[in-house]
Amino acid sequence: MDPGHGLIETDAVVIGAGPVGLFQVFELGLLEIKAHVIDSLGVAGGQCVELYAGKPIYDIPGVPMCTAQQLIDNLQKQIQPFGATFHLGQQVNALARQDDGRFAIETSLGTRFLARNVFIAGGSGSFQARRLRIDGLDAFEQTQVFYRIDEPARFSGKHVVVAGGTDLALDAAVALAQAGPHRAARVTLVHRRDVFQADPALIAQVQELRDAAAIDFVAGQLTGIESGPDGLNAVQVSAGDGSTRSLPLDALLVMLGFNPKLGPIADWGLNLERKQILVDTERFETSTPSIFAVGDVNTYPGKKKLILCGFHEATLAAFGAAARLRPDHPAQLLYTTTSSKLHQLLGVTTPDAN
Amino acid sequence: MDPGHGLIETDAVVIGAGPVGLFQVFELGLLEIKAHVIDSLGVAGGQCVELYAGKPIYDIPGVPMCTAQQLIDNLQKQIQPFGATFHLGQQVNALARQDDGRFAIETSLGTRFLARNVFIAGGSGSFQARRLRIDGLDAFEQTQVFYRIDEPARFSGKHVVVAGGTDLALDAAVALAQAGPHRAARVTLVHRRDVFQADPALIAQVQELRDAAAIDFVAGQLTGIESGPDGLNAVQVSAGDGSTRSLPLDALLVMLGFNPKLGPIADWGLNLERKQILVDTERFETSTPSIFAVGDVNTYPGKKKLILCGFHEATLAAFGAAARLRPDHPAQLLYTTTSSKLHQLLGVTTPDAN
Repeated sequence: MDPGHGLIETDAVVIGAGPVGLFQVFELGLLEIKAHVIDSLGVAGGQCVELYAGKPIYDIPGVPMCTAQQLIDNLQKQIQPFGATFHLGQQVNALARQDDGRFAIETSLGTRFLARNVFIAGGSGSFQARRLRIDGLDAFEQTQVFYRIDEPARFSGKHVVVAGGTDLALDAAVALAQAGPHRAARVTLVHRRDVFQADPALIAQVQELRDAAAIDFVAGQLTGIESGPDGLNAVQVSAGDGSTRSLPLDALLVMLGFNPKLGPIADWGLNLERKQILVDTERFETSTPSIFAVGDVNTYPGKKKLILCGFHEATLAAFGAAARLRPDHPAQLLYTTTSSKLHQLLGVTTPDAN
Repeated sequence: MDPGHGLIETDAVVIGAGPVGLFQVFELGLLEIKAHVIDSLGVAGGQCVELYAGKPIYDIPGVPMCTAQQLIDNLQKQIQPFGATFHLGQQVNALARQDDGRFAIETSLGTRFLARNVFIAGGSGSFQARRLRIDGLDAFEQTQVFYRIDEPARFSGKHVVVAGGTDLALDAAVALAQAGPHRAARVTLVHRRDVFQADPALIAQVQELRDAAAIDFVAGQLTGIESGPDGLNAVQVSAGDGSTRSLPLDALLVMLGFNPKLGPIADWGLNLERKQILVDTERFETSTPSIFAVGDVNTYPGKKKLILCGFHEATLAAFGAAARLRPDHPAQLLYTTTSSKLHQLLGVTTPDAN
């Protein structure tokens, strides 16, 4: 769907294809604004599919239960009428305001845009994963060293070492250790000490898998690697008593959480507060007009990092962008239930009109 | 479910059982706050079930299409774990702050509450229907004169006169005239002139039904009634040219829109703006601490009267109320996907924990 490396001129670029980014496309579509969506992952869905695709969500209003993947699938179906173009597997590296007020955007794959409005729907996933600093480790990134489970199949039948002690790491260890098509041959969890900062139920689950010898646990810090012509063979784990042991592996999954640095976004001149992008609550616009921030990446008084709040934010941001695009013709609020114009945009037949 | 006329002491009273009022129960439930819900209608659902139960909604995030009734059914399923008590078919007539900070509430059926927090989720339906002022008309209210289609069955096989020229009236005329179990024998639409302030598709639909003689149209204003021992027999319609004609009927449906007066809510001392309740965007709290207003009844900069925005408002209002109830223990944001505490409250099993 990527039209290539030509310059794309557009009214709206949405950065982030998680649930809020997808719903941003929907609300823009109702206002007849077409969107291009960029995401660093290779598929739409953001954290929802990356971290907990199969897990149930109970607090989407009007949906008593759905899995994260179902939510994403439904959102994709919902935005289908609006024909957004997706630019996946690439990160926005540069964003700069032009003299004409538009934003020049360039991704890591060289896709370039000139956009009148930008929606940062980055979630927490726009933050960089906290990296493990060990000499020589980076050389194996994406072959044996990973910071995300973006393709669970690659860990199938492997001995995987998972580094970390929070929900993120424990979740990954459980997912890899449990029966399923992508089950790892062996999972070893490495954390500084045998105490975890995670949900009690998840900790209990890890303990059960440890009792069943489905997860091994090693206390200590990763301090070095052992590699040969075949690649990475082992990591060195230093215990609190000063001893170091060698831990053989096929793959290393580093799950140390997200770096509180915002990544490239921090350089875009937006007002930040505690590393979140500060927005107003009328348009969810940042300190730079026509740059909006919605979902977990933003902050304002009362902010709760909930998907349903992001849906509201995306809605008001869409109206904010419409006002920027057409200052003399404020967008009228129409209802999808009654408006024949919206029915036309949605590609549905006006009910009972026959 | 109504425990009777004793005084009910509670942490939360929700006024309005529309979609936003129902979701208010959910968000309060996640914070372990039990709620009592009051609604003037005899069933939960508010405008959704009253005005467009069978009509599709396309902009509930993550739900490509549902009918209004399905949305309400799903919300009721979603809040089921929290065991809210519903007090239906009664209107809140009085609300007064007590010396101890709690609110004394009394409904039209005499149900009395002492509530620490009040959530006005009134929608537009909390507004009073605009009444038709004709001598003697009120005597037939609820027998032959109606301001809502709360029980469509009662119009079945009747000659119904519908008064009004907006979506509300046209929708009602179409619903009554179309085939179905509750089809009226004859539907006559009366409006000042043959021009309607309504959705073009709906106007076209009414025109088709007029062409098919399924709806009659009479231009003029209702100025009088004719009644006898059997009740209301006819209404008098005065045309622009000064002539008056008699229009026989079985039932009169007055659909003149909602009165811009807020009804009893206007007397509760809350700051209003253009007849909407002014709230902040941090807690969606009114000018009176511990009284929150969510959904179509409130206003704030950027406000859009959308159900999905009401869901966000109810969420932040729930946290606002929790902070009022437990000022020293701010509620922690937990996730329904990962929190075993929330799973317990929701009555679901923590996934994969076996």
